[in-house]
Amino acid sequence: MTGTASSLAPARMEGNGAYNRNSCVQEAGSAPAVPLFEQAARLAVLPAPPQPIVIADYGSSQGHNSFDPMAAAIRALRERTNPDQAISIVHTDLPSSDFSALFQALATDPQSYLRIDPTTFASAVGRTFYEQILPSAGVALGWCSWAVQWLSRAPAPILDQVQVAYSKDAAVRDQYSRQVANDWRTFLHHRGRELRLGGRLIILTMALTPDGDFGYRPILEAMYAALLQLVNEDFLSAAEVHRMAIPTVARSLSDLEAPFSDGRFADLAIDHAEVFLGQDLIWDAFERNGDARAFDARWAAFSRASVLPTLARDLDRGGADTRAGEFLDRVEAEMAARLAAAPEKVVIPLGLVVLRKD
Amino acid sequence: MTGTASSLAPARMEGNGAYNRNSCVQEAGSAPAVPLFEQAARLAVLPAPPQPIVIADYGSSQGHNSFDPMAAAIRALRERTNPDQAISIVHTDLPSSDFSALFQALATDPQSYLRIDPTTFASAVGRTFYEQILPSAGVALGWCSWAVQWLSRAPAPILDQVQVAYSKDAAVRDQYSRQVANDWRTFLHHRGRELRLGGRLIILTMALTPDGDFGYRPILEAMYAALLQLVNEDFLSAAEVHRMAIPTVARSLSDLEAPFSDGRFADLAIDHAEVFLGQDLIWDAFERNGDARAFDARWAAFSRASVLPTLARDLDRGGADTRAGEFLDRVEAEMAARLAAAPEKVVIPLGLVVLRKD
Repeated sequence: MTGTASSLAPARMEGNGAYNRNSCVQEAGSAPAVPLFEQAARLAVLPAPPQPIVIADYGSSQGHNSFDPMAAAIRALRERTNPDQAISIVHTDLPSSDFSALFQALATDPQSYLRIDPTTFASAVGRTFYEQILPSAGVALGWCSWAVQWLSRAPAPILDQVQVAYSKDAAVRDQYSRQVANDWRTFLHHRGRELRLGGRLIILTMALTPDGDFGYRPILEAMYAALLQLVNEDFLSAAEVHRMAIPTVARSLSDLEAPFSDGRFADLAIDHAEVFLGQDLIWDAFERNGDARAFDARWAAFSRASVLPTLARDLDRGGADTRAGEFLDRVEAEMAARLAAAPEKVVIPLGLVVLRKD
Repeated sequence: MTGTASSLAPARMEGNGAYNRNSCVQEAGSAPAVPLFEQAARLAVLPAPPQPIVIADYGSSQGHNSFDPMAAAIRALRERTNPDQAISIVHTDLPSSDFSALFQALATDPQSYLRIDPTTFASAVGRTFYEQILPSAGVALGWCSWAVQWLSRAPAPILDQVQVAYSKDAAVRDQYSRQVANDWRTFLHHRGRELRLGGRLIILTMALTPDGDFGYRPILEAMYAALLQLVNEDFLSAAEVHRMAIPTVARSLSDLEAPFSDGRFADLAIDHAEVFLGQDLIWDAFERNGDARAFDARWAAFSRASVLPTLARDLDRGGADTRAGEFLDRVEAEMAARLAAAPEKVVIPLGLVVLRKD
């Protein structure tokens, strides 16, 4: 059996605002990071006026989930700064990301941080964060939520799953482990250049529990079963499913801390690091109202908005494949049907790291 | 006969990179402005390192036509600056603009200015330039090419044409004249805030010749005739065509100079202002090769990429109208057929203004 891995970077989140509408899991998961971001805004060394205070939002997707943390940071900064000193918020994501959805949300979403401060300005950078993408020593505050678990590339096909954490292939697991360690160092290296002295960077990412659990088991089992079902129905070929891999990897606490074994890495030091379990809002709602249909629909929509566009790229004709739209619909429907059979609480392990440059 | 004007801002240029591919007229028209931009880069007062030098590209569309002027400015700046001082280029356009095409072009176009200087960084702002969209006093150099002829809104329907310059309705012409005067002041007011002391702003826009000619006559006649033909064929309703208006207005030299009657406006002063005729590259190619088919196809594609998306928004169901794609195709085809009948040189009047803040 052979297969070639997609050597591409991950696809963008689903467009036309779909990610903004179907990312409550991510929003809830990042909530515990917001107070730390607020505190970072109180502690960060700021540039002297009239230089703007630059906040970078690395891996913003369509922006909605960044509005709360950015608003919290703006409020904390405004306790320290002249209201005339501009705050410049730069949202970054892949070139293909739906930046129009971001700018529309900034203009029209009632939660847009542009509504709370007239001297805050927004911009975007469409470039992978595995490069330096902002001027050196300019960023006072960085935020990176649910983004750095995406590898720069999938290093190998995964023949027995789409998520390497559930693959039994030790060689493949090893390739992904090396990739995730390299990508973490690359990410930190470039952020170390972009941060100002005294700046702070808050990172929230998918993690492994202390006993090595990746979580999301029912979701990923439903997803892989849905793909195999579509092979049985001759909608997909086995070769297509073999190519499909979600290029996300979770890090253990020691993975996150590894580059800092000497205390510092890329001029950065750890202020705080932990792994915790994110709240499963979808399960909580199911416990309240017993609506299994809503439970499975929301987890299926979560998967669709975040990872199915990446899998769709591995259809025979890639993004141009005429089955791409139907692929998203059918995988989502198959997943929903499977998840409805036995709703269960989903384990959502998350890592939270606060870095400072000094 | 009644009609309501679309009170919306103009639509974005045609997406998926189409504007980048079909805007040679605009690129040729702006070529005479490039040496002035280069000179501005030599003269502008720059921030002290390590502050980045900010260049704003107002109304960038998908970016390709900005690559040459930006590269010229970067080269001129690098004769004056330490190579370590970052240059930050901010491309701005409407929220709906195709920013992914911009970022893809920046990453992959052989002419991308990112290839010539490792310390130059690009970003984007998706917001109308009839507001302040960048921090005060931060922009050292501004470039605005083929953009400020777009009004903030169409103030009235144009019942006898789609371009007000060819309407015989004096009241409507008057409404557009007032709008274009107001928009010019609004634009200048915000740029005056955004520019640094000693900064320079170069503006190239559609203009009226000294005898008041708007130009583009065969193109606009073909476009309006194409729309009427589609009414005859029951593809469009008369009401739809009545709603359609291209919200662009050309300015005479005295229109451009009007706000500066006291020597300054919004802290800005005129260094240079002229009206000239842009080169008709499409006609030049026709004269060389006699290929009428290429002549009409290129002018029709020019129209499609730049103004037809705005007209399509006035279909009964707006951008969601299922005829939108066919509308673009049919108007383009009808225009091409009409233009092929009698190729003629197109008058392309352009205004060029250099402003400084001091």
